[in-house]
Amino acid sequence: MEENIKKQSKISELRQDLVTGDWVVIATGRSKRPKEFAKSEEIKEPENPETECPFCNPAENEPENRLLVYNDNQDEWTLRVIHNKYPAFDRKGEAPQHFEEGPYFGMESIGYHEVIITRDHRNQIANLNKVEVAEILDAYQERYVDLMNKKSVNYIEIFHNHGRESGASIVHPHSQLMAIPVISPYVKSELDGAENYHRTSQTCVYCTMLEWELGGAKKKRVIFENDDFVAFCPFASRVAFEVWVAPKKHKPYFERITREEKVSAGEALQVAVGKIYKALNNPPYNFYLHTSPCDGRDYPYYHWHIEILPRTSVWAGFELSTGIEISTLEPEEAAEFLREQ
Amino acid sequence: MEENIKKQSKISELRQDLVTGDWVVIATGRSKRPKEFAKSEEIKEPENPETECPFCNPAENEPENRLLVYNDNQDEWTLRVIHNKYPAFDRKGEAPQHFEEGPYFGMESIGYHEVIITRDHRNQIANLNKVEVAEILDAYQERYVDLMNKKSVNYIEIFHNHGRESGASIVHPHSQLMAIPVISPYVKSELDGAENYHRTSQTCVYCTMLEWELGGAKKKRVIFENDDFVAFCPFASRVAFEVWVAPKKHKPYFERITREEKVSAGEALQVAVGKIYKALNNPPYNFYLHTSPCDGRDYPYYHWHIEILPRTSVWAGFELSTGIEISTLEPEEAAEFLREQ
Repeated sequence: MEENIKKQSKISELRQDLVTGDWVVIATGRSKRPKEFAKSEEIKEPENPETECPFCNPAENEPENRLLVYNDNQDEWTLRVIHNKYPAFDRKGEAPQHFEEGPYFGMESIGYHEVIITRDHRNQIANLNKVEVAEILDAYQERYVDLMNKKSVNYIEIFHNHGRESGASIVHPHSQLMAIPVISPYVKSELDGAENYHRTSQTCVYCTMLEWELGGAKKKRVIFENDDFVAFCPFASRVAFEVWVAPKKHKPYFERITREEKVSAGEALQVAVGKIYKALNNPPYNFYLHTSPCDGRDYPYYHWHIEILPRTSVWAGFELSTGIEISTLEPEEAAEFLREQ
Repeated sequence: MEENIKKQSKISELRQDLVTGDWVVIATGRSKRPKEFAKSEEIKEPENPETECPFCNPAENEPENRLLVYNDNQDEWTLRVIHNKYPAFDRKGEAPQHFEEGPYFGMESIGYHEVIITRDHRNQIANLNKVEVAEILDAYQERYVDLMNKKSVNYIEIFHNHGRESGASIVHPHSQLMAIPVISPYVKSELDGAENYHRTSQTCVYCTMLEWELGGAKKKRVIFENDDFVAFCPFASRVAFEVWVAPKKHKPYFERITREEKVSAGEALQVAVGKIYKALNNPPYNFYLHTSPCDGRDYPYYHWHIEILPRTSVWAGFELSTGIEISTLEPEEAAEFLREQ
């Protein structure tokens, strides 16, 4: 059965680890031949991005490339969303087919995989202004709301890779959105932790954290705040210069963000990324948005936020073996240095 | 209190994430100044390793460098174990001191951090023979048994980083051992999974997997086997060319491995690493050993094994956000290609 699915359609698969229950994606759609893995992948920097870069020049007349276009006026577009050309999650049917192989279990990797592209080939988030970053958040929200009620979608991951070492394979600044059928182990771990904390303390664990960071801790880990958002280096930072951006008020659902909050969030995100850019001389980094699942249940105890992870270290055997990260800089020191930028 | 510990002794800390309960190590002992993170770290390849490489020339007369020496005869040593010069876990006292900061919790990062060095500067595991690899396993076992009953030690991590992109900061082939006070989230996830499986199925989940791989699955993911060990690409591979090496019989405790089994394990590990070396043209990789904790409890349902992860991809925003890895090659194809090497 599983063989049939694969051979017929070359659709990607989610496979479950028999021991831990964790999922992996086997994305055959983007697959290389085995011998091609020996070559290292370099980002090809186009010499003439205006004509060569696929994100500078999405084929305008292909509906695939018109999921969302902002300021679509005589080639004056400022942001657009397109389908990922090599999706890890395939748009096919509504509910994923399951399969078994001996003791193992898997399912079709059904979902949506989109790319959010800002217009300028060279201007990264560090160099944008808060209104331009708010426009990116507009697009995140708009695509989120469009996909959240799809039958195959239980969680929507939104993330941004900058620089080759962070996994970005195209230089042109872009974010990605994956709408997927499963709730991931990391998100589940946060949801469980927040639920447990709420049960014993009758309060949100993130609100507790923010209250401490902005009060008792005397803002020693805070790098920026405005009326609605705060950017800080978390107490248990996994890497040097890790920064979280969170709404000050208790907000479980990113998709309910208001226009004013988007400008505040855009400012906090831009300042945080801009400070990392200056402090570390344009390092590779990833950020991602963690919010409540869209699986039809309520998550009143959760608190959406963005986590920014600069690539200041390589996760080696110890980290891969344990899930315990080793950071070589105290977040208090990192925050002090970021505040100075 | 926490400030005092840090300022006085510059000891490393374990800090707990308030939401997930996960631990991170803030290893101040190895710390750089904040502005130094902007420079990328290159492995310095010594021009004359015989005189310049610290692992070719550990100062013989320093007791720090004589934790274990094999064939210690007129500079003819073949393997030695030394303390890591920049330990992530400090040898200090017996039980770690705990501290609180507001809602947060942490403890001193107490433990042992050792380096296992084979003699030759250039010969990596791919180029050794099975008896030489068995000698490495001898050292793993000998150090394990020496540390397992220490009061501050509840788990012993043994791992090997090869190549700069895998996190190796010194070229000379070496493994590392960290004896730590906590059981890591990844190991705990495997222990919980194995215990649950045993409760419902009255059998070991790893034995079930191996029986399928060697039987019903017609060895399509197996790349090597001998009497005692099997090397195979796991069904839910996280990266292309991931390989696990496991004892065929049910064995919860690595430290009880016999002399004969060490030669068999050495052969399986060498063949697996050697095939990865040939297939991917000497790629960076990590491997680590997962075995039962040494916390005084019994783990009859667990099954020790080694997991080898070549760096065939970069974990980007999606993987960091979710813990779901995307692999672009089916393990069945990877195994076929590895068998051909």
